[in-house]
Amino acid sequence: MSRWWIDNGLLLTMSDAAPVIRGYMCVENGRITYIGQDRPQGDAGERVDGRGKLYMPGLVNTHNHAAMSLLRGFGDDLALQVWLETKMWPNEAKFTDEDVRWGTLLSIVEMLKSGTTCFVDMYDHMDEVAQAVAESGIRGCLTRGVIGLCPPDVQTAKLEEAIRFARTWQGAADGRITTMLSPHSPYTCPPDYIERIVEAAHDLDVPLHTHMSETRREVEQNVEQYGLRPPAHLAKLGVFSRPCLVAHGVHLTDEEIELLAEHRVHVSHNPGSNLKLASGIARVPDLLRAGVRVSLGTDSSASNNNLDMFEEIRLAALLAKGSSFDPTALPAAQALKLGTVEGARSIWLNDVGTLEVGMQADVISIDVEQPHYYPQTDYISHIVYAGSGADVRDVWVQGRQVVRNRECLLVDEEKIRREAQACYQRLTGN
Amino acid sequence: MSRWWIDNGLLLTMSDAAPVIRGYMCVENGRITYIGQDRPQGDAGERVDGRGKLYMPGLVNTHNHAAMSLLRGFGDDLALQVWLETKMWPNEAKFTDEDVRWGTLLSIVEMLKSGTTCFVDMYDHMDEVAQAVAESGIRGCLTRGVIGLCPPDVQTAKLEEAIRFARTWQGAADGRITTMLSPHSPYTCPPDYIERIVEAAHDLDVPLHTHMSETRREVEQNVEQYGLRPPAHLAKLGVFSRPCLVAHGVHLTDEEIELLAEHRVHVSHNPGSNLKLASGIARVPDLLRAGVRVSLGTDSSASNNNLDMFEEIRLAALLAKGSSFDPTALPAAQALKLGTVEGARSIWLNDVGTLEVGMQADVISIDVEQPHYYPQTDYISHIVYAGSGADVRDVWVQGRQVVRNRECLLVDEEKIRREAQACYQRLTGN
Repeated sequence: MSRWWIDNGLLLTMSDAAPVIRGYMCVENGRITYIGQDRPQGDAGERVDGRGKLYMPGLVNTHNHAAMSLLRGFGDDLALQVWLETKMWPNEAKFTDEDVRWGTLLSIVEMLKSGTTCFVDMYDHMDEVAQAVAESGIRGCLTRGVIGLCPPDVQTAKLEEAIRFARTWQGAADGRITTMLSPHSPYTCPPDYIERIVEAAHDLDVPLHTHMSETRREVEQNVEQYGLRPPAHLAKLGVFSRPCLVAHGVHLTDEEIELLAEHRVHVSHNPGSNLKLASGIARVPDLLRAGVRVSLGTDSSASNNNLDMFEEIRLAALLAKGSSFDPTALPAAQALKLGTVEGARSIWLNDVGTLEVGMQADVISIDVEQPHYYPQTDYISHIVYAGSGADVRDVWVQGRQVVRNRECLLVDEEKIRREAQACYQRLTGN
Repeated sequence: MSRWWIDNGLLLTMSDAAPVIRGYMCVENGRITYIGQDRPQGDAGERVDGRGKLYMPGLVNTHNHAAMSLLRGFGDDLALQVWLETKMWPNEAKFTDEDVRWGTLLSIVEMLKSGTTCFVDMYDHMDEVAQAVAESGIRGCLTRGVIGLCPPDVQTAKLEEAIRFARTWQGAADGRITTMLSPHSPYTCPPDYIERIVEAAHDLDVPLHTHMSETRREVEQNVEQYGLRPPAHLAKLGVFSRPCLVAHGVHLTDEEIELLAEHRVHVSHNPGSNLKLASGIARVPDLLRAGVRVSLGTDSSASNNNLDMFEEIRLAALLAKGSSFDPTALPAAQALKLGTVEGARSIWLNDVGTLEVGMQADVISIDVEQPHYYPQTDYISHIVYAGSGADVRDVWVQGRQVVRNRECLLVDEEKIRREAQACYQRLTGN
C-alpha cells in the first residue's frame, strides 16, 4: 500500500474548474485522494518536494507501433510506397520476438522520459509488447494489428492469435493493460475478413482500432476497389457498430465527419507523421466542431521520428491555426486536452487524464525553472507552445514512480539502447 | 590565445564532402585549424572528451526580436490585430533600457542553451542588445528596426539613431557583432522614409533587413495603398539594390519568387510563428528551386513561443512535405543547412556555419546517448526529425566556451530569469 504527497507544487489539474493551482496532492493505492490548497495533516506518506515543478496528468499517445523504433532514421525523405516497400516491410517481416521486445522497450523508455504514461500499440508479436508494458510500469492499450492479404488459413490463424491476445491480456498488469482488435486498414483487409474481426470484437466486447483515410491515394483506391470511400466502407462492414478508434482521418468530407460524429467514432490525429509522410493536414477544427472525439498519436518513430507528445500537442495547435488562417483555432488549453484527458477517453479510460480526486495517479512533473518557462505568465501556454518532453523530470503511473529525475526506475535504459542497436544491426546488416 | 581539441567525437561537418565523420578537431584563436580522422600530435591545448557526443556547427537564427521574450505567453490564441493592439504594442511602448536588457538576456540564455550561436535581432534600445551580446559571448547581427508612422522630426531622429547604432557596433565584440539597417516593413514606413533608409545603408555599406509579405491582409493593404504588392513596392524603393534579408515571405507569387532570386534577396523563413499567428505556410521548396537563399528564424518568443531552432528546422522540413504532398521535399540534410550554413550566408558571414579548417569555431555538442538517437542510423535524420535544443550540452562561439554541460558560463541564468520576471510584472501590473 503506497502513499505519497506533493508538497507545494504547481498543479495543472486539467479540470475545467481550476486548471492551475498552487497546492498539495495526496495519492493512495494508485489513486488521487486529495488535491487542493490545504496542506495534508498527519502522516500522508512519502513527501515529494514540489518547488520549481509543475505537476500534470501524463500524456496519452493514441497511435503507435512501438517496435518500429528499430527502423528510426532508416530511410527518410522517400516517397511513401518506396519507403514501405524497400525499407519498412522487408525489415519488419524479419522482426522476431526479440526485436519486438527491444524495439518496444526503446520506445517505452523514450515515452516515459518525455511524459507519456499511456500508449496505444498496434503491432505483431504482441505478447512481447504486453510483457514490456508490464515490466516498465507504463499503461498500454494493446492490439494485434492483422493484415488480411494472405490465404484463408493464415487469416484465421492471425485472427485467432489476435483474439487470444485480447482475451489473455485484458486487465493484466494491475489493470494497466487493456486490449482491442485491429483490422490493420480497409486496404489491407478484405471486407469479409473485416466482418469476422468485427464479430469477434462483439464476442469479446472489446473496441476496434484501425487506420483510415490517411492518404489521398488510399481513398481513391478504396473507391476503385469497393465503390465507397473508407468511412462508408467501414460503416457498411459494421466497424462502427463497436466502440472504435481510427488513426489519421486526414482526408474526410463534411459528410464523413458527420458520420464519425453520429457513430461516436474516435479519431487519433497524428500531425507529425502525416506531415513527414506528406499525407496532408487533418481537419481537426472541423472534427471538433462536429463533436468528434479527437486525441493525438505519434505513429511510429520510423515516420515521426520521435515519440515526444508535447510536439504533437503543439503541432496540432499550430497546424489548426496555420491551415485555417485563424489564430483562435484550437487554443492551448484545448490542444492540451487532446493530449491528456481526451486521449484517455478515446480509449475508454474514464479515470485517467486529469488530476482530480478518485482519478488514477498517472502524473508527470515538469521543471519550470528554465528560460522558456519565463516569464511565469500562462503555464498552459508555456507547456503547449514552448515546452518539450525534455522538461519532464518525474513520472508516476497508477501511483507508482517509474521515472525519477529523468532516470527510468524499473527498466535498464542503457541495456535497452545497446540491445536495440544490436537488433538493428542484425536486421539490416549495417 | 586559446587552444583546444575534441578527442574522438562524431563530427557533423555540414561540408558536402564528408558530412559525418568520427575523429578529431583542433581550434586555435577561435578558428578551426584541423578536422579529420588523425589524432593531433603534441600539445593541442585543452582536451575535450568527445565520447557520446556529436559536434556540429551552431545554429543561426535569422529573425528575432529577443526582448519580446518578456511577453511570452501574454496573450496567445488571439486574432493578430487584437494581439498586436491590446497585448504587444501597449506593453512594448513601455519597454525601458532595463526591460530590453533582461528580455534580451533571457532570450540569449535560451538560445545558447538550445544550440543557437548567432542571431539576427531587430528591435529598439539596441545598445542594450549589443551589450548583452558582447557580455554573453553569442554572435549577433543587430539592427534598430524603425517604424515611420510618426512626425518627420521623429522619423529623422529614429533614422539617425539607427545609423549611429549600425556605425558604432559594426565589428564590435571581437567581430561577433555586425549591423544592418531596418525599415520595419512596407506597411509601417512611408515610401520616402524607406528611400532615406536605403540611402543611409548605401552610405554605411550595411545590408537591409525588413518584414515582407507575412500576411494576406498586409499584401492586400499594400496594393490598396500603393498599387503594388510588397516585393514590387520594395524593389521600386531601391531596397533590393542593397544586400537584403526579408523576414517571412509567406505570400509570394511565382513572379515575386523570380524577382527575389534575381535581386539575390535572402528570405528568413519563420515556420513556427507563421503557423501560430495563422499567417500561412511559405513556399519554401519553390523558393529554393528558384535559387533564393533561404534561412530560418524563430521570430520573437511572444509569437513562437520558444527559440529552439531545432524545431524550426524540423517544421521547415515537415511543412514543405505536408503542404506539397511530396515526402521528398526539403530532405533532412537540406533543412539542416538552412539552420546552419545558409543562415550564416544569409547574413553575409562566410566563415561561419560549417566545421572546416579556417572557419570560425561556432560549435555545439549534442548528447546522442539518448533513446531518440537510437538506433544509430543516420545522425542527420535524427537531429532534424528527432532532436531538440534540449539535447545540446556544450556551446562554443568563436572558439570560446559559453555553455558547459547546459550551464551558461558568462552570464548568470538564475539572475536573468528573476530580473525578467520582475520586468514582466512591472510592465503588466501582474
